[in-house]
Amino acid sequence: MSTDPFVVVGADAAGLSAASKFRRAAPDREVIVFEKGHWISYAYCGMPYFIEGRVDQLSNLLSLSPEEANERGIDLRRGHEVTGVDPESQTVSVESDGETVDQPYADLLVATGGRATTGPFDVRGVDGAFTLHNMDAAAAIDAYIAEPDAYEFARVDDTPVDRKRVEHNAALAAPETAAIVGGGYVGVEMAEALRGRDLDVHLFQRSDHVLPPFGEAVAERVQEELTEKGVTVHTNTPVEALVGKDRIEAVEFDGAELAVDLAIVGVGIRPNTELLAGTGIELGAGGAIRTDDYGRTNLDDIYAAGDCATARHTITGDETWFPLGLTANRGGRAIGSTVAGEPMPVGDIAGTAVVKAFDQECGRVGLLDEEEATAAGFEPVAATITAGSRSGYYPGAAETDVTLVADRETERLLGGAIVGPDRAAVRINTLSTALDAGMTVGEIEQLDLAYAPPFSPVWDPILVAAKVLNGRLND
Amino acid sequence: MSTDPFVVVGADAAGLSAASKFRRAAPDREVIVFEKGHWISYAYCGMPYFIEGRVDQLSNLLSLSPEEANERGIDLRRGHEVTGVDPESQTVSVESDGETVDQPYADLLVATGGRATTGPFDVRGVDGAFTLHNMDAAAAIDAYIAEPDAYEFARVDDTPVDRKRVEHNAALAAPETAAIVGGGYVGVEMAEALRGRDLDVHLFQRSDHVLPPFGEAVAERVQEELTEKGVTVHTNTPVEALVGKDRIEAVEFDGAELAVDLAIVGVGIRPNTELLAGTGIELGAGGAIRTDDYGRTNLDDIYAAGDCATARHTITGDETWFPLGLTANRGGRAIGSTVAGEPMPVGDIAGTAVVKAFDQECGRVGLLDEEEATAAGFEPVAATITAGSRSGYYPGAAETDVTLVADRETERLLGGAIVGPDRAAVRINTLSTALDAGMTVGEIEQLDLAYAPPFSPVWDPILVAAKVLNGRLND
Repeated sequence: MSTDPFVVVGADAAGLSAASKFRRAAPDREVIVFEKGHWISYAYCGMPYFIEGRVDQLSNLLSLSPEEANERGIDLRRGHEVTGVDPESQTVSVESDGETVDQPYADLLVATGGRATTGPFDVRGVDGAFTLHNMDAAAAIDAYIAEPDAYEFARVDDTPVDRKRVEHNAALAAPETAAIVGGGYVGVEMAEALRGRDLDVHLFQRSDHVLPPFGEAVAERVQEELTEKGVTVHTNTPVEALVGKDRIEAVEFDGAELAVDLAIVGVGIRPNTELLAGTGIELGAGGAIRTDDYGRTNLDDIYAAGDCATARHTITGDETWFPLGLTANRGGRAIGSTVAGEPMPVGDIAGTAVVKAFDQECGRVGLLDEEEATAAGFEPVAATITAGSRSGYYPGAAETDVTLVADRETERLLGGAIVGPDRAAVRINTLSTALDAGMTVGEIEQLDLAYAPPFSPVWDPILVAAKVLNGRLND
Repeated sequence: MSTDPFVVVGADAAGLSAASKFRRAAPDREVIVFEKGHWISYAYCGMPYFIEGRVDQLSNLLSLSPEEANERGIDLRRGHEVTGVDPESQTVSVESDGETVDQPYADLLVATGGRATTGPFDVRGVDGAFTLHNMDAAAAIDAYIAEPDAYEFARVDDTPVDRKRVEHNAALAAPETAAIVGGGYVGVEMAEALRGRDLDVHLFQRSDHVLPPFGEAVAERVQEELTEKGVTVHTNTPVEALVGKDRIEAVEFDGAELAVDLAIVGVGIRPNTELLAGTGIELGAGGAIRTDDYGRTNLDDIYAAGDCATARHTITGDETWFPLGLTANRGGRAIGSTVAGEPMPVGDIAGTAVVKAFDQECGRVGLLDEEEATAAGFEPVAATITAGSRSGYYPGAAETDVTLVADRETERLLGGAIVGPDRAAVRINTLSTALDAGMTVGEIEQLDLAYAPPFSPVWDPILVAAKVLNGRLND
């Protein structure tokens, strides 16, 4: 075995999970983590809640400090950008303070994450136009929303924030009207966040429904909720252009123009794979780095994990790309163990996701989309029901919609979605578990789920949905 | 096939689920439901919340009215007591208004439920001493707690309540101090209910911990919660006697006496099987009527379901008795289908249960008890962890304890328990599903569970527990 170190590129969820696990499993070996920026281990998913003001300090979103990483025996080098990989000589080129050195590796983990795509829009250099995919952007948006020169800089203290950018935004006139371009997770969460800051909010979604991966039943309830909470939802409305040279002035759509003084573009993310260009690396689903069950790429001793890597889908067994937090943490941890000599599979993903839209809790898992399920070789049959979240007489009982999708022939569950205001989101884990186990709808109907008036009716909404779908399958 | 009707004894969850399903599946055949009392289809589990005052009307706890049952085509006969069964002639003797008639049956469902046991205590004829296993008792307790002659009888309107008993109790002096004998579900729920009515509450539990089926971790948290909310918890304290001839005066324990003016005995229930005495019926676990996968007893064309029947345990495959609401509803429904000519198994039970103790939500499933697991042929290994219910920075994140128990050799999950104030109870369904699927702890550790800051940390508490237990299993 080479005595060269385990080298990790990127110090967020996947990279630091790998380094931490590796240190515990192989305490005598060296691990170096290169991070081109200054932020490490931050909670991307928490940013909307910081901007909303529910979270007081940006530093609350940091889970591991550089000092803690060092205490774990991780050689963390911030401000070090890996600019090239040579699989032949097993070295990476690392640039820092204008100098480049070659660093040999025994094993290499590429955990470079993803970045916000902006579609046809260019937000660079335009005040008031933002994407939201890093902590500096979150701080900048937060400062921009504040009244001029009234920003509480304590909000961003104790972080390596780009102070100049925050100061610049803090000095600008406070916005009154915001356009959010894209009705995915980020769009919906930001709509809530900006309403929480008393802005007039317009959410633009290119297709029929917001939150496309959650299916129609969830989308309809969420759109109602957004509208009720004062968000103007524009579906079937692709934004054509952002107007404004130095500062955002309007968004153009459908031949019309809406004057705005804040625009947030949340149209998706793409994997950062450029580092490996020219190495012969294979890319796969979503343009992410193709990985196997152990997170290995096609190149010897090179692994990938997190938002830059593919994963295997629980239901289809096919390669997929589903950049979410647990996938990154789990993949990194498994690779850390594998590199340390204790092989651990990274685990399949079922596509479980939950999102909060004001008072509605939404969850989804598996294959919900008819086309997608058909393309994967299934004949999808679906049912959507509405049932109470608690016994009807117990205060707080609320309508919960459950959609289940199954394959006609095998009657196996393919996917599901849940929406409702009362503890709906965590209920998706029941379906995720059933999917992982390959259960049929009949088996789900027979699950011994919990009943007590404050928490669930006798027939849990999931059981009601299974009953109805089972009836449909056996018609 | 006989043209005699399908006869059901008992018009609560199991009986009416069976009759309803049967009518839909066999619309041309007759179904008669005999109920000796006047209440039908009531929510036993909702009574504490009525007494607490969270539920305004006793009628809210009724889910199906006699009129609705008739509209479904069910021949419901209240005030008709089935006093005997003759399996030879396939008839039951039915007594009503002092007359007895023989009713032939093609199929018979015994759904006679259970009744509260009182142990060595006799509560009959003693004012202020109650058990809680029917609607009249709930109404009587509710009236007894009210100030004399200030009871709002509207609380019990539109029900077949025993009005005389309510009036009698409403006239009595209001109690100030209550003893609850037994720290099971009923005891814990009644402690909360009586505190909600501003009583001084003492809860007596014979053994070390309240809620024995939930294991120590849950019990400890619940005992803290009860104490914090003003309930005096007496563990290891069997009550020896209720003192008082016409009205309850005190409870005796451990050589001491505590003056009380209300006592609720909740020491368990027992199945009502007397109707079948002398028929050659086989009884099983808990003294309940032994049933097979389809709810059939050992006697031809006689079925049993609900609190009077046994069930099969998901984990052990052994006969068990676990009288809970879903089991009754599911068993009745399956038998209704089977009798109608569409055989449907009643389903195994995993022993899933949830209970609310003030602000703590508790859940349990499977085999938690070391002795019980060992007796079933397993070598149980357990782990209890504490983890956040949401991302640490998100308001409302609360400590959630998860206990997992697995078999050392197969590493299969045997049972689990959860307690915490934030959406803890419904999380038990994830474990119930995993148990049903026969998952190992390693498989649970790899589940793709939901993550979003408002609902769960990246590593769901269940994943954290699986990680720790898996480490212990592979030590």
